[in-house]
Amino acid sequence: MTSQFEPRDPRFKERVTQSFADQAIMQTIGASLLEVRPGQVEIGLPFDRRLTQQDQFIHAGVSSTIMDSACGYAAFSLMPAEARVLTIEFKINLLAPAAGERFRAIGKVLKPGRSVFVAEAELYAETGDSSKLAATMVATLMAVASHD
Amino acid sequence: MTSQFEPRDPRFKERVTQSFADQAIMQTIGASLLEVRPGQVEIGLPFDRRLTQQDQFIHAGVSSTIMDSACGYAAFSLMPAEARVLTIEFKINLLAPAAGERFRAIGKVLKPGRSVFVAEAELYAETGDSSKLAATMVATLMAVASHD
Amino acid sequence: MTSQFEPRDPRFKERVTQSFADQAIMQTIGASLLEVRPGQVEIGLPFDRRLTQQDQFIHAGVSSTIMDSACGYAAFSLMPAEARVLTIEFKINLLAPAAGERFRAIGKVLKPGRSVFVAEAELYAETGDSSKLAATMVATLMAVASHD
Amino acid sequence: MTSQFEPRDPRFKERVTQSFADQAIMQTIGASLLEVRPGQVEIGLPFDRRLTQQDQFIHAGVSSTIMDSACGYAAFSLMPAEARVLTIEFKINLLAPAAGERFRAIGKVLKPGRSVFVAEAELYAETGDSSKLAATMVATLMAVASHD
Repeated sequence: MTSQFEPRDPRFKERVTQSFADQAIMQTIGASLLEVRPGQVEIGLPFDRRLTQQDQFIHAGVSSTIMDSACGYAAFSLMPAEARVLTIEFKINLLAPAAGERFRAIGKVLKPGRSVFVAEAELYAETGDSSKLAATMVATLMAVASHD
Repeated sequence: MTSQFEPRDPRFKERVTQSFADQAIMQTIGASLLEVRPGQVEIGLPFDRRLTQQDQFIHAGVSSTIMDSACGYAAFSLMPAEARVLTIEFKINLLAPAAGERFRAIGKVLKPGRSVFVAEAELYAETGDSSKLAATMVATLMAVASHD
Repeated sequence: MTSQFEPRDPRFKERVTQSFADQAIMQTIGASLLEVRPGQVEIGLPFDRRLTQQDQFIHAGVSSTIMDSACGYAAFSLMPAEARVLTIEFKINLLAPAAGERFRAIGKVLKPGRSVFVAEAELYAETGDSSKLAATMVATLMAVASHD
Repeated sequence: MTSQFEPRDPRFKERVTQSFADQAIMQTIGASLLEVRPGQVEIGLPFDRRLTQQDQFIHAGVSSTIMDSACGYAAFSLMPAEARVLTIEFKINLLAPAAGERFRAIGKVLKPGRSVFVAEAELYAETGDSSKLAATMVATLMAVASHD
């Protein structure tokens, strides 16, 4: 698979994988890292009754959790080795109920910068072979020096 | 305590409390309903290591979870008895790391409508007697008929 | 050209064209309607020194003006004949300075609904044959009855 | 009037006033700078038929123009003398039609940073002695070195 972005750190995949493993919330909700490419990251989440809102759909905050991390790691994959990533803000649009057997958040960098990155994510609700766009996100992220 | 809003359903507190109890995610993360007034709802969350991102702060998606529900229930408290509430979209700005002993999301209706509501939330990170604004949210919500 | 959307009103193009002509701001800034398809609308704007901010780029509010209308009319093109369109909210990300000879806002419906529509817009800054993505927008719009 | 913010440049008011004068769009729409305090800026705009959308209200893009600049200059007022200000993104919620004799955008810094600022704006539609909240904005801004 090709990518339009050139990573500054050749060990970007290792850094993303390690940081994801350090996010305790991902274990808590059962999310896993599906794919890491330069400027693009996918996170998967099986449906779990413990993550639902009052209508038995996945809560929008849980969708936000994996979409925000997909955006953050998409940006992080393009940052220099010594950088940390911070989310400044994001906006999510909920297009359909997050109902399905499993969910896939695909985060992509829209614009990399020296310090500020803009990324987008899509959330797909998947059941069997079908897949439905359930939400979109736009996020602004910042690269900060590790010791900041 | 007074409020600028008049609830259409006098049993608004019961409806909010019941719906909150139906959100399995709230038990999963340890959140509780602190206060329900017409157009204003507060949700509390103790710090829990299981909810953190890579820097040991509460993940922005978890902050979003309680802020979204605070906005949603603030709107829901003003809706007629037969309505359900849906979040259409929200935006969160992360102003400071979500670091503290406990967190408080305060959601308030900014503008009630026939079908569309705009609400805002603030997230405070609290330690001992100190409280710090950690994030703000603006959310758009919709009242839908229960059988929709 | 094909479209994934079926307009409910066969006279959608006339309605959009008429409404655009009724937006006095479009004449004031020199914007024109370039294309109207079901669920997709393009608006063009030549560079004009009178529309700039302090660095001689087109002001973000002017970019917002044509992007908001591109989103609004993309949604309006799919609404029934008797509906009006209202913007509920939008978010714009400014990716590059709006510098160029002319600008093109392309608005597309992401999700049509009974009353609520989500649309996206891209703003391209064009000079000669080159075109650069300068901004993206996500907007939420509502169909309201004409007499509301 | 007091402010919670201390300007880094004592000549902040001059800098804001000069930059505002350099925004050609402000003359084009008839906007004026009403007040400049550390971290807070107000911009006024009389109603003008040339700025309207199809229902004779002020176009949301025009509201965005003065709200974005109010946020931008609120942030700019706190920046060091040599900095320029860029808007990264903003979100606007339209709460009521922008109908009135004149409009007032009040921008306030919510969180100043080394490089990233978060600001909020409110838009009031005023007629005679009455004033109505018509829109709210949240904006993210960045301080960049003048020669960037």
